[in-house]
Amino acid sequence: MAAPSAQASLETSPTRLDAVGSALLFTEARTTNTFSDRPVTREQLREIYELMKWGPTWANTLPLRIVYVTTPAGKARLLLRLQPGNISKATQAPVSAILAVDSTFHHQIPRLLPFRPEMREALEADPGLRDKIGTGSAWLQAAYFIIAVRAAGLAAGPMGGFDPAGLDAEFFPSGDWRSFLVVNIGHPGESSWQERLPRLDYEEAVRHA
Amino acid sequence: MAAPSAQASLETSPTRLDAVGSALLFTEARTTNTFSDRPVTREQLREIYELMKWGPTWANTLPLRIVYVTTPAGKARLLLRLQPGNISKATQAPVSAILAVDSTFHHQIPRLLPFRPEMREALEADPGLRDKIGTGSAWLQAAYFIIAVRAAGLAAGPMGGFDPAGLDAEFFPSGDWRSFLVVNIGHPGESSWQERLPRLDYEEAVRHA
Repeated sequence: MAAPSAQASLETSPTRLDAVGSALLFTEARTTNTFSDRPVTREQLREIYELMKWGPTWANTLPLRIVYVTTPAGKARLLLRLQPGNISKATQAPVSAILAVDSTFHHQIPRLLPFRPEMREALEADPGLRDKIGTGSAWLQAAYFIIAVRAAGLAAGPMGGFDPAGLDAEFFPSGDWRSFLVVNIGHPGESSWQERLPRLDYEEAVRHA
Repeated sequence: MAAPSAQASLETSPTRLDAVGSALLFTEARTTNTFSDRPVTREQLREIYELMKWGPTWANTLPLRIVYVTTPAGKARLLLRLQPGNISKATQAPVSAILAVDSTFHHQIPRLLPFRPEMREALEADPGLRDKIGTGSAWLQAAYFIIAVRAAGLAAGPMGGFDPAGLDAEFFPSGDWRSFLVVNIGHPGESSWQERLPRLDYEEAVRHA
């Protein structure tokens, strides 16, 4: 039987992710701490965005912004703001992506949610709700980003250990974008991950009602 | 050529997600607003968890908790707390999942991050950092959850419009778990989604440095 095209497969019935896809994105995927010299192309960086951009956000607000740091000058500015334990990882990785939330994301609402343009003014008037929606949706998009890095055949190493205020002063002097995660991207190097850490059992994390 | 097994494929070289997988999880996936009568099985609900649990979180803290609401009694308690525009969706969906963050997630750190058990006490002493890590990681896990629903061949309808304090009083009277998202799960019904909303262009959301 010929392999079905994506379109045909979705038209016949909702399909499931196959074992190769599950392994690539979840069951065999690992946070990567060392990287080989193998480069990452500009096309791959675009491919990651063109996939992750489709993930759903609160009222389609899409507040995530990305800075792909690839140049020696850019890396030098980034390394200064990392906790010591993360410097070697980011030095090795061909790309380090700074993930940030755009605190003016609501300015795009009339275009991104054309049937409710008044939400722009509602969020302008309510900084607390704006921050809640922006932060939550940006974290959702960060997860879509990590999954999309893996979908592109690359390894992701997310890092929370950095000085966000210092990083923002260095990369976002206008003050609109606030960094919240750095994700190293590349191909795994030697001894790139530790033993897999445990997860909570279904019965610990899930209830039925 | 025979189709490679997941294991073989990953051993030879990092593969990429194929077109069927990309369509299923991202490019053709849609937020679902109506649901058919087709049921969702207990096995599918477990399968969703067993896939999404592998997604990375900050220091493997895994703060997300899930309540699968499937019974008429459970649905009645949920519907009372939803904004009016969301009641019909949750009534139709065979399953509505309440996603919550466990504010005592750090109690599990000695088991989940065995080489840094002292992080439990560090987070106990720093409620601000604890909340930041718990909230961010729970939102990451919410995105893994949505992707895993789709991976299981089901449709997801995430909803932010509900009264979190009321929902928590109803479902989490002990006060430890705090709801932040409800995700309807099932198979799409008629006219299940609107026209696709726009996304930001690459040049708007991404910079290089």
